[in-house]
Amino acid sequence: MLTLALCMALLGCLQAQELQGHVSIILLGATGDLARKYLWQGLFQLYLDEAGKGHSLSFHGSALVDTKQGQETLAKILKTLSCPKDMAPDRCVKLKDQFQGLSQYRSLKTSEDYLALNKDIEAQVLHEGRWEAGRIFYFSVPSFAYADIARNINSSCRPSPGAWLRVVLEKPFGRDHLSAQQLATELGNFFQEQEMYRVDHYLGKQAVAQILPFRDQNRKALDGLWNRHHVERVEIIMKETVDAEGRTSFYEEYGVIRDVLQNHLTEILTLVAMELPHNISSSEAVLQHKLQAFQALRDLQKSNAVLGQYQDYSQQVRRELHKPDSFHSLTPTFAGILIHMDNLRWEGVPFFLMSGKALDERVGYIRILFKNQAYCVPKEEHWATAKSPCLPRQIIFYIGHGELGSPAVLVSRNLFQPSMPSQSWKKVEGHSSLRLFGCPLSDYYAYSPVVEQDAYSILISQIFHCRKDSFITTENLLASWVFWTPLLDSLAEEVPRLYPGGAVNGHLLDFEFNGNQLAFSQQQLEQLVPGPGPAPLPSNFQVHKAKYRESPLVSAWPEELITKLAEDTEATAVRAVQHFGKFHLALSGGSSPIALFQQLATGHYSFPWAQTHLWLVDERCVPLWDPESNFQSLQTHLLQYVRVPYYNIHPMPVHLHQRLCVEEDQGAQSYANEILALVANSSFDLVLLGMGTDGHTASLFPQSPTGLDGEQLVVLTKSPSQPYQRMSLSLPLINRARKVAVLVMGRMKREITLLVSRVGHEPQKWPISGVLPTSGQLVWYIDYEAFLG
Amino acid sequence: MLTLALCMALLGCLQAQELQGHVSIILLGATGDLARKYLWQGLFQLYLDEAGKGHSLSFHGSALVDTKQGQETLAKILKTLSCPKDMAPDRCVKLKDQFQGLSQYRSLKTSEDYLALNKDIEAQVLHEGRWEAGRIFYFSVPSFAYADIARNINSSCRPSPGAWLRVVLEKPFGRDHLSAQQLATELGNFFQEQEMYRVDHYLGKQAVAQILPFRDQNRKALDGLWNRHHVERVEIIMKETVDAEGRTSFYEEYGVIRDVLQNHLTEILTLVAMELPHNISSSEAVLQHKLQAFQALRDLQKSNAVLGQYQDYSQQVRRELHKPDSFHSLTPTFAGILIHMDNLRWEGVPFFLMSGKALDERVGYIRILFKNQAYCVPKEEHWATAKSPCLPRQIIFYIGHGELGSPAVLVSRNLFQPSMPSQSWKKVEGHSSLRLFGCPLSDYYAYSPVVEQDAYSILISQIFHCRKDSFITTENLLASWVFWTPLLDSLAEEVPRLYPGGAVNGHLLDFEFNGNQLAFSQQQLEQLVPGPGPAPLPSNFQVHKAKYRESPLVSAWPEELITKLAEDTEATAVRAVQHFGKFHLALSGGSSPIALFQQLATGHYSFPWAQTHLWLVDERCVPLWDPESNFQSLQTHLLQYVRVPYYNIHPMPVHLHQRLCVEEDQGAQSYANEILALVANSSFDLVLLGMGTDGHTASLFPQSPTGLDGEQLVVLTKSPSQPYQRMSLSLPLINRARKVAVLVMGRMKREITLLVSRVGHEPQKWPISGVLPTSGQLVWYIDYEAFLG
Repeated sequence: MLTLALCMALLGCLQAQELQGHVSIILLGATGDLARKYLWQGLFQLYLDEAGKGHSLSFHGSALVDTKQGQETLAKILKTLSCPKDMAPDRCVKLKDQFQGLSQYRSLKTSEDYLALNKDIEAQVLHEGRWEAGRIFYFSVPSFAYADIARNINSSCRPSPGAWLRVVLEKPFGRDHLSAQQLATELGNFFQEQEMYRVDHYLGKQAVAQILPFRDQNRKALDGLWNRHHVERVEIIMKETVDAEGRTSFYEEYGVIRDVLQNHLTEILTLVAMELPHNISSSEAVLQHKLQAFQALRDLQKSNAVLGQYQDYSQQVRRELHKPDSFHSLTPTFAGILIHMDNLRWEGVPFFLMSGKALDERVGYIRILFKNQAYCVPKEEHWATAKSPCLPRQIIFYIGHGELGSPAVLVSRNLFQPSMPSQSWKKVEGHSSLRLFGCPLSDYYAYSPVVEQDAYSILISQIFHCRKDSFITTENLLASWVFWTPLLDSLAEEVPRLYPGGAVNGHLLDFEFNGNQLAFSQQQLEQLVPGPGPAPLPSNFQVHKAKYRESPLVSAWPEELITKLAEDTEATAVRAVQHFGKFHLALSGGSSPIALFQQLATGHYSFPWAQTHLWLVDERCVPLWDPESNFQSLQTHLLQYVRVPYYNIHPMPVHLHQRLCVEEDQGAQSYANEILALVANSSFDLVLLGMGTDGHTASLFPQSPTGLDGEQLVVLTKSPSQPYQRMSLSLPLINRARKVAVLVMGRMKREITLLVSRVGHEPQKWPISGVLPTSGQLVWYIDYEAFLG
Repeated sequence: MLTLALCMALLGCLQAQELQGHVSIILLGATGDLARKYLWQGLFQLYLDEAGKGHSLSFHGSALVDTKQGQETLAKILKTLSCPKDMAPDRCVKLKDQFQGLSQYRSLKTSEDYLALNKDIEAQVLHEGRWEAGRIFYFSVPSFAYADIARNINSSCRPSPGAWLRVVLEKPFGRDHLSAQQLATELGNFFQEQEMYRVDHYLGKQAVAQILPFRDQNRKALDGLWNRHHVERVEIIMKETVDAEGRTSFYEEYGVIRDVLQNHLTEILTLVAMELPHNISSSEAVLQHKLQAFQALRDLQKSNAVLGQYQDYSQQVRRELHKPDSFHSLTPTFAGILIHMDNLRWEGVPFFLMSGKALDERVGYIRILFKNQAYCVPKEEHWATAKSPCLPRQIIFYIGHGELGSPAVLVSRNLFQPSMPSQSWKKVEGHSSLRLFGCPLSDYYAYSPVVEQDAYSILISQIFHCRKDSFITTENLLASWVFWTPLLDSLAEEVPRLYPGGAVNGHLLDFEFNGNQLAFSQQQLEQLVPGPGPAPLPSNFQVHKAKYRESPLVSAWPEELITKLAEDTEATAVRAVQHFGKFHLALSGGSSPIALFQQLATGHYSFPWAQTHLWLVDERCVPLWDPESNFQSLQTHLLQYVRVPYYNIHPMPVHLHQRLCVEEDQGAQSYANEILALVANSSFDLVLLGMGTDGHTASLFPQSPTGLDGEQLVVLTKSPSQPYQRMSLSLPLINRARKVAVLVMGRMKREITLLVSRVGHEPQKWPISGVLPTSGQLVWYIDYEAFLG
């Protein structure tokens, strides 16, 4: 919560709090769904809370329909408003009457309409004998209408000088990073950042709003627990039973990830994962820590997601959007996402985000499950309930619905007794037979709100009081889109698994992870309705053995090829360590080896890393930490995952005396000396090479003869493409290796693969043709794509 | 299992298998407990299995009692032998008679007795018209008697040339590494390694013997599962209900760790953890992989153990060993140990070893619990039983007793259906209401042996057939002692927690880990009987702030001091990164900083490692990978745990051109250049120093003036102790730092701490007195021990 002091420092807050002025609230889209269901009720609540406290209020509902029709509709809506439970009925009637008196409908289409509104407000303020405190414009309209409205407000309806303007925006805020940025820029033309309140109504839900205060008030207990050593997983879940019928025109464009995950669940994720600011009432600190949490999110891969679509969806789209019978939608209505954070606190802890329509129950929760690190000596049947350290330990922020039916905060009794604000949260009574998350409710310290409040009532009150921390800043919004957009792009053509909807889904949508990969637990069944995508190919690929340039050839589809190369590399390493006590491996840069690095980093438990020396075959003349550097790629994809002793790692010294690859710095000579000193006979145990489309290998290029023969072990060379300067092992040195593996992958390599298969020993033209170990072995690893194109 | 082919290659096996000779089996200690309970039955089983198959057999029971008494006792024992269940009673009587006829008692005390035995065997062989195949001597005697017996066998009772000798040894094989080695050396004087069969009878238990075959026959299913990505924990448990009464003279010398953990549970651990050989029937490969598993065990710390002692134990010892009333034993009768393996397969997976006497049940098992990596979408009550990926997934090798009452192998049905040898293992029937490890038995694929066999029968048969893989080689034995001895030494004075014994123990012995530390889950209650150790001190230490040499002083007990220094270091780092985008930290070598490194490595989640540059304050002129190297210490205690980019790590270049700290290699100059290039104004953000008992700091020594003043930033210096050559930051460079922290810990530093508090600025005499940052801050961190001594 923003403190008063801090808030008052912001423009507009001072007057709002201290003096008695007039506030006009203009609800745009006043007769729409959201307004009917939540917003008018929220405004009425605001009136109940604030009337008589200082400012006078007026409410303007507007829409595009004409005044008479709008007035009638609005009157109907206002009749349905409800008062707090404990209010006497006659008082309720009276207050509703007063509120109706302050509320009026007006059509807002043209700039003249806005000018007229402006005049009316000024007149009213004058009439009341007050001054104007501020105006709130609540945009409950489709985002395509934003620009027009914003322009009109800015040009014709800004409040009088000294009074504040607040515009409230409802999602969607774009459908990817680009559109979100465009929208933000557009709005930025008319409003200042501090004038905008982007609503994510989940941040107004009581259990969600409690996350940071809970972390803050239980700092001492959580301090040692809230990290990868203790947290087994975090689940952030929103399950719906309804489907998208009647809303497919919106849904078809957005889908579940944009509708729920990118905003609601991601916001929650940051509240759970961020470093806790010392002072959580500082909006700036909260925002800054949130942004840091975004920084730590590991990039999402396609393989981090599972997608589903309920069976009737496509038909609903065809019907509602008048599509032909042949139309099949790819829009997911269900998504499970595995998220990892690359920081010390959360490294290795899986965050599951899941949401879907047409599921078996309506419920939302955040569940932090702690690791069981105890061994309990007595027989299980003698474990005392609740307090045994071997029973599940968890903290749950229960957003609502579900079996509990109300918001709640649950903490396992074997964890700690939480400190909760007793004026707003009370212990849950009853529900004695209820089981939640594997435990009877009695195993938890359980709290629910003293008064249940709707999220919109809470948020409208916060807007009125100038408290910005539950709203999405532009920076926050764009950080979230930066995270999600690449995944959304990569999933655009993905065929979601069809599910029947409701309880009969059974285990069809259960998913699990293996390493960094997420997959449905059950094998794909026959699709209930044939999906639009290509049928998956049978996985009957076989590793093919043959000859290429008279040396052994291993050929297979890309994945199998990498698997085989990784296996062969490990076997070579194990043998080398058995015989010599160490393994000297020289690695090339480029993209193909990355797949190998990843394979070696995640499997291959017997790989003797502690005895392995890593050398570079070639390097670009850039600093080692440059993303272009081959070494940096090695660091990112392999070194950070395995335990190679620092002093067994041998980057090429391209960066000496604060300059790159200068002859007189003798970097090449010094690398050669290092090799001579450490590698017996300067024979590497394994050299991994690639082949360029021009027939180059290592950084030995056809255009320049350096390094193709002669005495030099390490040479500086020139590449035809940037960065031009390179350092490379020489061909004679490569050919001293005990084993050389050449990895060639991808369609781009088809022509050169064909060509090189036919040429003789012509290293000047095609350096790769000069690779022929004097007494070692050469093996080609070429994938089918390079052969077949 | 050793294959026949391989076995026959070993000396003695050929004749034993192929021709019909005579085998004599001499059981030493033939009337002792073990012999009565298991060994004679095992020999009878051998007779049942082998009689008539080729070799003729004779059985010689021997002990120290005279012949008549021995004969009577033996006759009684032989009467109690039992036949297999399915054998007809009259056949049983007949076979028992035959076995009795082949068995005789003889007293074996003197070398003449052994010579006589030798003659009798030769006579019998001659009488039978056979040749001698071999002799088995089974040592069922206390190990102090080994040497004498071994000498007699070797000098007077070796079989005739061409026949084999096998001696079978029973634990204890020493009580620490030294005594085990002595015993092994002693036995090595008389027997060759291949002649010795050291029994660990747990390796003959059917469920334990099944571990490797199970891993082998289910390779495909286990391949992806048997590693740290999937295994949550491994429990290796042996619970007993009996106590040590009547055996305290043995137990008091050994205790639970030597009695059970060092041998049985450790052997099991290696079977579970080792890399699976391609061919598990190769004893050599199994042994080699076992030894590799020992290599990967992380050194045990005192903090990896919890110890208990049942309440009556001390009294039993006093009674049985005639100790005074004031005697309290420290021998543990319960131990829980947390073991980690430092290899890629098992890194981070906790292995719990636990055994105890006077517990609530008798049971032994190995439990491999897999991680739950699934999210199940339906309500929990709708999870189908058994196959849901969210139910527990585990594999259990159930050694016996407990609620199941027989050996078994259990595999969760949601894991895979195991392949089991159907001739020896059958599906478990019945027990329909039994729950094991949190699941009903019906959730498992469960198998038990077709025929339950006693471990000794199995092992005796293996000895007879020359199959060595279930026995403990000398190498294996010593590797295990190398692992356990330091822990046993460090625990020698530890006071075990007293427990009442039986079901009333409740949760008193439950334990859990936090990081690498194991502790009882419940706070220590008041001891039921006052233990002999010192009462624990209340933890009311406070960090003390004051001045030392006119600079701020932080003083506290060692742990608090390190905690404070780590916090301050992190705060400094965070501020530096906020202001400058990076943090330049220079670290000293020595032992005190190690505690700091460890603190930083395990906590401090917000430490900005990715932006931190690590520099060395000083270095010994040894290669970086030398254990003496300061950098190596940094690598071991910090670098391997945190993600500092390779290129932010700056070891001192003491090792250039294959030589150490040679002036003309300009290592010091090159380090200075690196500092000048990367560290703005060459002002480190934080320099951490220590102080030697001679007043030296960094590697700036009172005996040599180098580096105390002048222009040089980095200097080569001479230390009064080995290794003499050092590289060090100079005093002027240190004094340019923004902040310098001097850490002084331990009683050894008392005198110099006092002295330095009084001296002025005399860096020539006490280099530490020259530390005074020009414009930065100096803070002393001195522990109470250095102050109080």
